[in-house]
Amino acid sequence: MTLAAGFSLRPGFGFGGVLRDTLPEALREAVPAPPIWGEDEGWMLETLRMAMTHHGLSDPNPVVGCVVVRDGRVVSRGATERIGERHAERVAIEAAADRSVFQGATAYVTLEPCSHHGRQPPCADLLASVGLARCVVALRDPNPLVDGAGLARLQAAGIAVSVGALAPEAAAWHAPFLLGQRLGRPLVAAKWAQTLDGQLAYDDGAERWLTGKAARAHTHWLRQKYDAILVGAGTVLADDPALTVRDAAGDRHRQPLRLVYDPNGRALAALPQRLDRWKAGLLSADAPTVFLLGAAAARQAAPLAALLPPSAAMLALPEGEPVDALFEVLAGPAMVARLGRPVASVMVEGGPRLLGLLLEAGRVDLAHVFIAPVIGGGERNRIAFPGSVAATRGWRPIATAALGPDLLAEYVPAATATHLARLVGPHPAGSPLRHG
Amino acid sequence: MTLAAGFSLRPGFGFGGVLRDTLPEALREAVPAPPIWGEDEGWMLETLRMAMTHHGLSDPNPVVGCVVVRDGRVVSRGATERIGERHAERVAIEAAADRSVFQGATAYVTLEPCSHHGRQPPCADLLASVGLARCVVALRDPNPLVDGAGLARLQAAGIAVSVGALAPEAAAWHAPFLLGQRLGRPLVAAKWAQTLDGQLAYDDGAERWLTGKAARAHTHWLRQKYDAILVGAGTVLADDPALTVRDAAGDRHRQPLRLVYDPNGRALAALPQRLDRWKAGLLSADAPTVFLLGAAAARQAAPLAALLPPSAAMLALPEGEPVDALFEVLAGPAMVARLGRPVASVMVEGGPRLLGLLLEAGRVDLAHVFIAPVIGGGERNRIAFPGSVAATRGWRPIATAALGPDLLAEYVPAATATHLARLVGPHPAGSPLRHG
Repeated sequence: MTLAAGFSLRPGFGFGGVLRDTLPEALREAVPAPPIWGEDEGWMLETLRMAMTHHGLSDPNPVVGCVVVRDGRVVSRGATERIGERHAERVAIEAAADRSVFQGATAYVTLEPCSHHGRQPPCADLLASVGLARCVVALRDPNPLVDGAGLARLQAAGIAVSVGALAPEAAAWHAPFLLGQRLGRPLVAAKWAQTLDGQLAYDDGAERWLTGKAARAHTHWLRQKYDAILVGAGTVLADDPALTVRDAAGDRHRQPLRLVYDPNGRALAALPQRLDRWKAGLLSADAPTVFLLGAAAARQAAPLAALLPPSAAMLALPEGEPVDALFEVLAGPAMVARLGRPVASVMVEGGPRLLGLLLEAGRVDLAHVFIAPVIGGGERNRIAFPGSVAATRGWRPIATAALGPDLLAEYVPAATATHLARLVGPHPAGSPLRHG
Repeated sequence: MTLAAGFSLRPGFGFGGVLRDTLPEALREAVPAPPIWGEDEGWMLETLRMAMTHHGLSDPNPVVGCVVVRDGRVVSRGATERIGERHAERVAIEAAADRSVFQGATAYVTLEPCSHHGRQPPCADLLASVGLARCVVALRDPNPLVDGAGLARLQAAGIAVSVGALAPEAAAWHAPFLLGQRLGRPLVAAKWAQTLDGQLAYDDGAERWLTGKAARAHTHWLRQKYDAILVGAGTVLADDPALTVRDAAGDRHRQPLRLVYDPNGRALAALPQRLDRWKAGLLSADAPTVFLLGAAAARQAAPLAALLPPSAAMLALPEGEPVDALFEVLAGPAMVARLGRPVASVMVEGGPRLLGLLLEAGRVDLAHVFIAPVIGGGERNRIAFPGSVAATRGWRPIATAALGPDLLAEYVPAATATHLARLVGPHPAGSPLRHG
C-alpha cells in the first residue's frame, strides 16, 4: 500500500475538523464523538477544538490551535487571530496572568510554531522563553520559511519536541493553507449532496433537500473554510440558495464571497422577477455576490446592474477555455477588490454541469460528498457525465462518517492524497525530529 | 431523535463483526483497527473476535463468543460449536484444565447465556457453578425461552451482571439470528458494489470489478453469514460468479447454498456452452447450486438436467407473485433437502433487477453497500429503478467504513432499525438489570 492510499482520518474527523463540534448543539447526537486515544492525542483533540473556535477568522493563514497542559490540566489556550494579529501560541501565552504556570508544562500546537519574523515575532522563540518542558506538534509546517526550523529552535532551548499527534486530522483541518501553498492556483473543493445513486436532486423536484439537518449544518460550517462559494446558474434558478453560513456551530467569523457561474446570463436574467427573494438570500448584505458572465451575456445584462444591491456585481469572464477563464477571474483584480487579495480557495456547490466541468478539467482538489440514504431512481440532475470514470480515476476516501441519516464521504484525487501523505509521513533522513 | 435513528455501530465494526478481522492478513491495513474504549468494551471486543473464529459454524444458531478474564488476563475462551454441540460458555469452561482459574474471574459473553434445557444443559447454570465474580453480557437474548432468565440465574448465584458492552456491535453480529426470530420468513440481506453514482457495472464492461481486494474479501466473509446466496440470471451470464467463500480471513466453516433466480431460463440456457467454466465456479462441488426457474422454463430446460453435476439442481418456482413464489421456495422441501432445514437467511448479490424486485416488495432487511470511489457516468446497470425513492424511504446507515479505496455503508430500513434499537435499548421498567 502506498503512502497516499494510507492517508485517512480517524473516526469522527473530516476536513472540517471534529465533525461533532461543527454542528449546533441540538444536532450533535447525529455524529458520534471521536473515540479516546492516548494522552497526546487526547490533548491534541482539545487543541484542534480550540482552533475550531476561530474557524474562518485568519484565512488564508491557517487557523492554528494551542493548548498548554500542566499536571493533567489545561492552564492556557489560544487560537490564531485575524491576519496581522496574534498567532495561537502568543494568544495562549499572553492569556496566562502568571507565566510561572508554564514551568514544566507541555504545549500542544496543531502546526509547527513559526520561526521567522513576520508581522509578529517568532512563536518558537516565545514558547522557548516560558519554561515549557515539552512541545507536541501535530504537523510540521512545510512552508520553506519554517519547515523544521521552529521545532529545531524549541529543541535548542531544551524543550522535548514530539511531532505527529493527530497529524492526518491536523493536515485536513489546515488543508486550504497546506494545499494552497503547493498549487499556485486557487484550491477547489467540490461539495455535493446526492442520493445513493448519484442524483443531486429528485426528478420531480418534490423535496428541496436530499439530506438532513446535520448534513446541511455541516455544509454551512464548511463554507467558512473557503474564501468563496461557487455555484452554477442552474442551481441558482432551481434552489434560490443563500450560500451563507447560518446553521453551523459557534461564532461566525466570515461569510465567503458568493460567485454565480452564469456564462449565458440565464441566472441574472431572472433578477427582475426574483429581486425581492434574492435580497433576502443570494443578494443579502451578508457577503458580496458576483455573477460571472460570458462577454455577450455581460453586454446584454448591463441594464440589470442598476437593480443589484451594493454588495452585488456582475463581471465578464475573459475569452478562452471556460475553466481557465474562471481561474483567471478568481485571481484577478475584481476578487482582490472584494476580498483584499485573490481568492485562494473556493467550494463549488453544484450543479452537475459546473462540477462536471471542473472534475473533467482535473481541477478538483478534494470533495465533500453527502450521501442521502435513498435510491433516487431518476434520470436528471445526475452527478454522472461522459468521461467521469476517467475524471475520478485514483480518487480515495480519506474520511467517512454518518451525519444522522446521511453519510459524509470526503474524497481526494491521487495528487492531493500524495501531498497529504507527504505532509504527515516520516520526515527525510537526517531530520532531527521523530514522530511522537 | 428516535431510538431507531440512534442505532449505529462503533467505528471499525459492521454486520460482519470487526471489519479488520474479516480480511486476510495481507489486506488488513485497508481498515483501521477499532479504537480502544473502556475495559469491558476492550474485553468484549476480544470476545466478539473469539466468536468470529467460528463464523458460519453454528448457523442458524448464533455464533456466540465467551472469554473469561482474571487479573487482566484471559484465562479461557470459547465459541459456539456446530448445532447440537457445545455453546460458547461450555467450551470456555471446559477448556480450562483447572476450574480454580474461574474463582473471582469475569466472563464476557456476546449474548445472554441460555437458561433452558435444550440439547445442552443451561449455560447460565454452568457459569453460576464455577465461582465467577462477574459476568458481562453484550446483549440480552430476546428469545422468550431466555429473555433475562439467564441473567437472573447468574444474579441469583451472587454473580454481578452487566449488560450492554458493545451491545449494538453484538446485535449486528448476531443479526441473522436476532432478526430471523422476528420475521417469520427468511431474512434478506442485499449486497451490492456500486460506483458513487449507483452503477453496479461499467457500461463498457471493460473492468470486471468495481471494488478493490478488501471489499471483495469482505464480501466473501459476509457470505458465511447467510444460509444462501441469491443472484439473478443476468449476473450469472455477465460475471460467471463462483459465489463461494474464498478470500476471507480465518477458517471456512461453511459454503452457503447458491441460488440462481432464473425465471425465464436465460442463465440455464447457457449451461451447455459454459459447463466447463461453471464446473470450476458456480457449479463447483463446494456447495449446492439451484436454478430457480419459472414453470415454462423448467419444462423447457428439463433435458439440461443431465448435464448438471450432482451438487446442482433445477427447481420450478410456484405460480403466483414472483417475490412470494421465491419465499415459498426458500422455505420449501427442496431447500430442506439440501440444507437440512428451510433457508433462514439469504444474501442477494444482484443484479439490479432482482435487487429492485425485492426492494420494491419491502423484503430487504439490511443492505451491505460497497461504494467504489469513481463516478461511473453510465446509463446501464444502475441500482436505480422507478419507485426506488419510495422503496428506500426511511433507510438508515448503521455502519460506515473505508475498505481500502472503497466505502462500505450498511443500511437498514426503518423496521430493522427499530428492532435493533429495541434489542440494545433500555430494558422495560421493572427489569432487575442495568446496563453496564
